[in-house]
Amino acid sequence: MSEATDTTPGWLSREELDAARDRMPILYVDAVPVRVDDTGTVTHVGLLLRVGEDGTISRALVSGRVLYHERIRDALLRHLEKDLGPMALPRIPTSPQPFTIAEYFPTPGITPYHDPRQHAVSLAYVVPVAGDCRPRQDALDLVWFTPEEAAGPDVQQEMTGGHGVLLRQALAHVGRLP
Amino acid sequence: MSEATDTTPGWLSREELDAARDRMPILYVDAVPVRVDDTGTVTHVGLLLRVGEDGTISRALVSGRVLYHERIRDALLRHLEKDLGPMALPRIPTSPQPFTIAEYFPTPGITPYHDPRQHAVSLAYVVPVAGDCRPRQDALDLVWFTPEEAAGPDVQQEMTGGHGVLLRQALAHVGRLP
Amino acid sequence: MSEATDTTPGWLSREELDAARDRMPILYVDAVPVRVDDTGTVTHVGLLLRVGEDGTISRALVSGRVLYHERIRDALLRHLEKDLGPMALPRIPTSPQPFTIAEYFPTPGITPYHDPRQHAVSLAYVVPVAGDCRPRQDALDLVWFTPEEAAGPDVQQEMTGGHGVLLRQALAHVGRLP
Amino acid sequence: MSEATDTTPGWLSREELDAARDRMPILYVDAVPVRVDDTGTVTHVGLLLRVGEDGTISRALVSGRVLYHERIRDALLRHLEKDLGPMALPRIPTSPQPFTIAEYFPTPGITPYHDPRQHAVSLAYVVPVAGDCRPRQDALDLVWFTPEEAAGPDVQQEMTGGHGVLLRQALAHVGRLP
Repeated sequence: MSEATDTTPGWLSREELDAARDRMPILYVDAVPVRVDDTGTVTHVGLLLRVGEDGTISRALVSGRVLYHERIRDALLRHLEKDLGPMALPRIPTSPQPFTIAEYFPTPGITPYHDPRQHAVSLAYVVPVAGDCRPRQDALDLVWFTPEEAAGPDVQQEMTGGHGVLLRQALAHVGRLP
Repeated sequence: MSEATDTTPGWLSREELDAARDRMPILYVDAVPVRVDDTGTVTHVGLLLRVGEDGTISRALVSGRVLYHERIRDALLRHLEKDLGPMALPRIPTSPQPFTIAEYFPTPGITPYHDPRQHAVSLAYVVPVAGDCRPRQDALDLVWFTPEEAAGPDVQQEMTGGHGVLLRQALAHVGRLP
Repeated sequence: MSEATDTTPGWLSREELDAARDRMPILYVDAVPVRVDDTGTVTHVGLLLRVGEDGTISRALVSGRVLYHERIRDALLRHLEKDLGPMALPRIPTSPQPFTIAEYFPTPGITPYHDPRQHAVSLAYVVPVAGDCRPRQDALDLVWFTPEEAAGPDVQQEMTGGHGVLLRQALAHVGRLP
Repeated sequence: MSEATDTTPGWLSREELDAARDRMPILYVDAVPVRVDDTGTVTHVGLLLRVGEDGTISRALVSGRVLYHERIRDALLRHLEKDLGPMALPRIPTSPQPFTIAEYFPTPGITPYHDPRQHAVSLAYVVPVAGDCRPRQDALDLVWFTPEEAAGPDVQQEMTGGHGVLLRQALAHVGRLP
């Protein structure tokens, strides 16, 4: 999950966040960007391509922290614009009900999700994006996959921390699990 | 709920539908048309204004039957275009999961919903519409209300058959119940 | 999906049902019976073992029609008691919101679900059962599988008509998709 | 929302929690305890009776923080047992999908929910309780109300911080909004 928000002026410093992370669950949002047709059917899923510090390639969902005094909706919009660019035109869901809750534990195996840095609890949403996506920041690229490709072994093994499971849960929710 | 679809060539005749209605639940969709802001917050709810055979005024949601061999998504799109016009640009939800199921019984009082003609079971969805709405067919007009107005006594008493409750359930689902 | 309800006195005759099936979608419920621990975590999924007319073995969810003037809740309870016996103690969900809608088309490939006899639209629920299950009627046996087993290739290939996909959607909904 | 968990040994001290509260959203769970009949229909809602420091009476849902390295399910169970006693036999939902997210802001009016102490984000669930409820700790009593009573003006005006709205959202979700 992205750390880009940690440098936002006025919020937690890196040291303060590190301290809090040892003590309490940190609230996140996960967004699964999708392309839809006129009937709302999901035709493609967008995954960010990232290069880790050790050079490994991974694919990831849009993800990030919710800030103090920030609404979930605003956090979703902020992270989507940060990762997909200002012309992505994301359609934030009308309902705050997430399709699932992803509990990232620092200890692997307690849930399907894992984050070695912290205990993060993420509200997960499927978000149609209608516009032009231009990845920014630490993302190299955004690639659109069909539901079949996204749930397939090639893409799944490039996703870490449980994002592969979360992606398949999203596909199940929209009726597109192969 | 609209009967406009009953005359679609190739489907049930009026007599056949009447016969089936006495024997089995009829599948419907209900759509709550909404206007949203950039963060997906519902700002307005669209209600159809109808004049009954006895001259009474009522306000209604978009509603209608699902046809044989028709997907739920296609039924939603068809009824929204029928009632709101071809330029309404409805954003059909990505997930087939309805926010609730409305069970219209011919006998009042069994559920909050009532339809004297039949036992109808309706899958209910909130649908953002981004375009220009021009009511057609038997609807006189489409009026946009704030959530507060829509849940208020004036509008609620103009809704029949349980549509008032269903509208408030939709507002609850999107976090806008006053 | 079971036809056992078709012989209930007072409802559609076989001939009438056959006629209606050619003309309109038939309303069904699907139930995924599960065992849960004290925290609500699904530990096992119950699948019915059926022997087809041609001797083939298949595994199936609890499934059946909703009758005229019958509530969804009552249909769920009736089919669960019919298939699992009177001591199963199913805990029908508090909310009528299904985890998904399964659209069984007579034509394969339109959706992941298929029923050669009819166009059936099914409201799908996960239902914890706390009691003693004794399959009745045309079911040979009820077998409990872990989520990993249920989503695995051996069980999945014994499920037909899209029940394998629906089962994995249920597992995704409860956070147990492997 | 209850502060009882803050004294749990090994977790945040009061001072540390106070510091964190000024900087980041705190994760909570809200539970609406209900009684159900055999078909899962909600017949009653349980509300805690509390006496504030200034002697005012208020009614509240079961509510509290999620601790570091604690699953949502375990937090729900812990708070329900804390507030309703060890014999309440709560049936924690199978799905982690909450019926809504309640965003309690320290500034009133941004959302329907308000908590002057902090920015709390709460995952809200309806939880059937089958056993004997004996309120403990700071709750004076637990009173069961019908859905009509719970949504009525007398009870609603005794609920603070948006719990009245959240309760009506829960009733809408289970199909029992009057």
